Order: sequence, then structure tokens, then C-alpha cells
Amino acid sequence: MKLIRFGAVGKEKSGVIIDNNIYDVSAFGEDYNEQFFENDGLKRLQQFVESNKGKLPKVSADERLGSPIARPSKIVCIGLNYADHAKETGATIPAEPVIFMKSTTALIGPNDEVMIPRDSQKTDWEVELAVVIGKKASYVEEAEAMDYVAGYALHNDVSEREFQLERNGTWDKGKGCDTFAPVGPFLATKEEIADVDNLRLWLSLNGKMMQDGTTANLIFKIPFLISYVSRFMTLLPGDMISTGTPAGVGLGFNPQVYLQPGDVVELGIDGLGTSKQKVIAFTK
Amino acid sequence: MKLIRFGAVGKEKSGVIIDNNIYDVSAFGEDYNEQFFENDGLKRLQQFVESNKGKLPKVSADERLGSPIARPSKIVCIGLNYADHAKETGATIPAEPVIFMKSTTALIGPNDEVMIPRDSQKTDWEVELAVVIGKKASYVEEAEAMDYVAGYALHNDVSEREFQLERNGTWDKGKGCDTFAPVGPFLATKEEIADVDNLRLWLSLNGKMMQDGTTANLIFKIPFLISYVSRFMTLLPGDMISTGTPAGVGLGFNPQVYLQPGDVVELGIDGLGTSKQKVIAFTK
Repeated sequence: MKLIRFGAVGKEKSGVIIDNNIYDVSAFGEDYNEQFFENDGLKRLQQFVESNKGKLPKVSADERLGSPIARPSKIVCIGLNYADHAKETGATIPAEPVIFMKSTTALIGPNDEVMIPRDSQKTDWEVELAVVIGKKASYVEEAEAMDYVAGYALHNDVSEREFQLERNGTWDKGKGCDTFAPVGPFLATKEEIADVDNLRLWLSLNGKMMQDGTTANLIFKIPFLISYVSRFMTLLPGDMISTGTPAGVGLGFNPQVYLQPGDVVELGIDGLGTSKQKVIAFTK
Repeated sequence: MKLIRFGAVGKEKSGVIIDNNIYDVSAFGEDYNEQFFENDGLKRLQQFVESNKGKLPKVSADERLGSPIARPSKIVCIGLNYADHAKETGATIPAEPVIFMKSTTALIGPNDEVMIPRDSQKTDWEVELAVVIGKKASYVEEAEAMDYVAGYALHNDVSEREFQLERNGTWDKGKGCDTFAPVGPFLATKEEIADVDNLRLWLSLNGKMMQDGTTANLIFKIPFLISYVSRFMTLLPGDMISTGTPAGVGLGFNPQVYLQPGDVVELGIDGLGTSKQKVIAFTK
């Protein structure tokens, strides 16, 4: 199944994509949130969709999309999880995963505008595969970790490099600004993706390809990441783990390249669709 | 007003403390969460309490207390915000605040047990004053920051030092384990605390005083912290900012002292009550 949320900001309705068409499933009566995933929502939704085949209202392709998951309890991100990206940023390849957290207020729809924060000179992009957790995960063994996956989504882990690296303290400062987490277009449930370890992921800036990698190059694979993170904090249904970005971010260029108002970022992952964000200047 | 939540884990009811007695206000029909604070809940609750004076059910003092706020969208913590603590940990005094985030799944009641995580040798304590946000805060000016405060609570920012400092990456890894955020006993609304910059805060381990400081020594004061954090991420009603800990944590002793099963930690802040946690070994 492919789950989407559509409609005005903060008033998104739930939908599904079937054969490239969007259908309104708000009659199902649930948002894609912690309670939904916790209470076997994916299976119940599947049954709802099957029982209502041919009767679901079709949604215009022009509708705004929201994040395909409602605001989760947390967004955990993995840093430096592609060797080429670690190298371009001057960092060494980590012996164990780097974890940081992104404020959930950063979450926006896949094609919403990304706003450069006030006093920012170094707003950067990062195409990433995000894993959405399907059930409560605490001290999960690597061999069982995939049982805890609801699905996957495309994520632009927008980052302010000065806030992240030069402002004293942890990376969290440069990761959680408003609009810094465009997610979607859709959540693909686990069975939609035949081989999650072999997906091309790419990002272009104003039509020029900047990142072009493959999840085959993930240093720490998804089952290990879920097991690892779940040793340090309990993951709740609907939580997101963003698995890191390949080479080609603005920080890695010489001279460095950062986002400017008017820029257009497009990104995609095999099987997880594409998204497109226009960059705008700060406004309060 | 002093707000408390009482009852079984996950089924807490809302209450208030009046003249050292606890009263059940679950008839008010709201939990102390984002929606409550956002929709002027404090003022409405005050009116409810006044209109129902003498009619509110009294709650036994033996009832378990939960965290006085329901799970917030985030817990933001400030590191190294007391000069004596920065010194004891070997860190330099920061030029601007260190920010990190604590998984909200760590939140527990003030007198619940603190569990040492699996493979932990260095579980440590930190008495802190936590600020609870009353309304959405984004790019707030320091001069107006106090308008965004709902109140204050006592917080033990339990920390695993190896996870935090020796495991590669940001502090978040050592801060968000289950049971690592005992909060309460109560949320004191802003007007309850005459001078938040002059409160004694202390923590004892098995009856021996370990931390004994004053908020007068905060390097970065509360209005500055709210303004500062709100530049990097939007704070939502009910969110918590924990303002840092004074000297006397286990990491600062020579040799270092860490929590063991059976230990009892007690802590308190003037006007914000006291809490007491028994330390237990890891169980899954």
C-alpha cells in the first residue's frame, strides 16, 4: 500500500494511492499517527480499501500533499551513514552510528516550500530514505528488527551547517528549523519495496544533479539501525528513522554551495516517488 | 496554581494541589497536553477550580504521581549552563547555549523507579529546573520570552555518560533511555514562583548531598534560553526546556560515582517540591 495525506496544512485527510490515482480514505476515520500504527491500522486500512473498492472518492492530482505520516513522537536521524558523504564533509567513517534528533515541528509536505531560517548562510540539502516504525521498539534484536518496520518514505533532511557544526553543541541545532523535514510524497509499506538495500536515491538543485547514490552503500543497514537506536531510546509506532545521506551535499563542494531563495530542489528514491521544494527567504 | 497528574501509568488523571491537598479535576475533561496549554487551559482550569471550590474530590496522598505534563512534542535540554558543572566535567564554559534533545519516551512520574539501561556502567543524575512552554514560540525576542512560559517543574535529567560522551555523536544517545526523565511532583504556574532566578536546587544520593546549587548561577537565563532555542526550532505549548544542572554529578567526582541498583536519589527545588527515585537494574 501507498499511504498519503492531502489537503490544507494541519487539516490533512488520509488517502491511498492505487494505480497512480489518489483516493480519499478519510471515511476510514483515522489519521496516520501513533494510534493508527499501534492498533494494526495498516491491516485494517487494507481491508477497508478492499471492501470499498470502486467506491472511494478520487482526489485531484493538484491537491497539496502533507507529510504521509502525522506528527510522530520523534524523528531520529543517522549521521555519516554513507562513506562518500563522510569523506566529503571531512569526517571519519563512524565506528558506530551517529544519532541526532530533528524537532518534529520541522515536518512539512513533500512539495511545500523550504524556508531559509533567519541569519542562515548555510542551508543545505540531504536526500534520505526514512524508515517509519510500525510497533513499539525497545531493545530489539537485529534479526527481528524488520518486524518493526511499517514502511519507507523519501525525506529531505534539510540542514543548516553553521547552526549544526559551528554553534557549539550537538547537531540538533541545525536540523529542526521549521520546514526542514519535507517527507513524502507517500509512505510505501514494507512489502512495496522488494530490496530496500538497493535503491537509487538522488537530488538535484535547479535541475543539476547534486546527489546520486544507492542505499547499497549504507554503512549501517536498516535492521542494525533499528536495533541500535532501540537500545538508547524506545521507538514508538509512527516514529521515523532517517538513514543518512550520500555524497553531494552543499557542504561537500569547494567552494561550498548553499540554498538561496528561488532555488528549486528535487529529489527521489526508487519506489518512493519524488518531491520538489522551492526555497524561500525567511519571513516570520 | 499547582498542577499534578495522578493514577496508574498511562492512565493519569489531572489534578491540582490546593493548600497541600490534592484534588481531582478530571471532571474538567482535559489532560495537561499541547491542546490544553494552547487553548488557554490554565485560565479555564483556574475558573473551573474556583467555580467548584469545596466540591472537588480529594485524592489520597498515597496515589502515584505521573509527570505533571502529558507527553510533550519535545524535551529540549541545555548543557553546561552552570559554570561549576562545566568545570567539573572538564568542559569550557560555552559561548552560547549547548542544546540537545531527550526522547519524550523517557518521561516518568517524579517518584517512579529509574532503570539502569542494558550495558550501562555510567548512569548519572542531574537536578534541573524545567520550563514548560505555554504558547507556540518561534523567533521570540528575549524581552517577550516570559510571556511564553506556562510554568516550572523539577526534573532529574538522568544521563548515561558513556552513551552520551564516548559512543560517537551527539549527546542525545545518553539522554533518552526509558525512565531518564522523572518530572514533577507538580507544574507550578509562572505566578507561583516569585523569583525564578534565585531558587536553591539540590540532589542527594542515599541521603548524602551531592548537588546543592542555585538558579542564580545559571549562565544563560530563562528568557535568553527561550529566545535562543526558538531561533532553531519552534517550541509548542507543553514543550519542556530543561535549563541545565549545577556541579555535583557523578561524572565530576574522582573517582566517578554512578548509580547502582538499590540507590535512592532525592532532589528538590525551592517552590517546586521534591521527588525521589529508587534505582533498579535493567529488565526488559
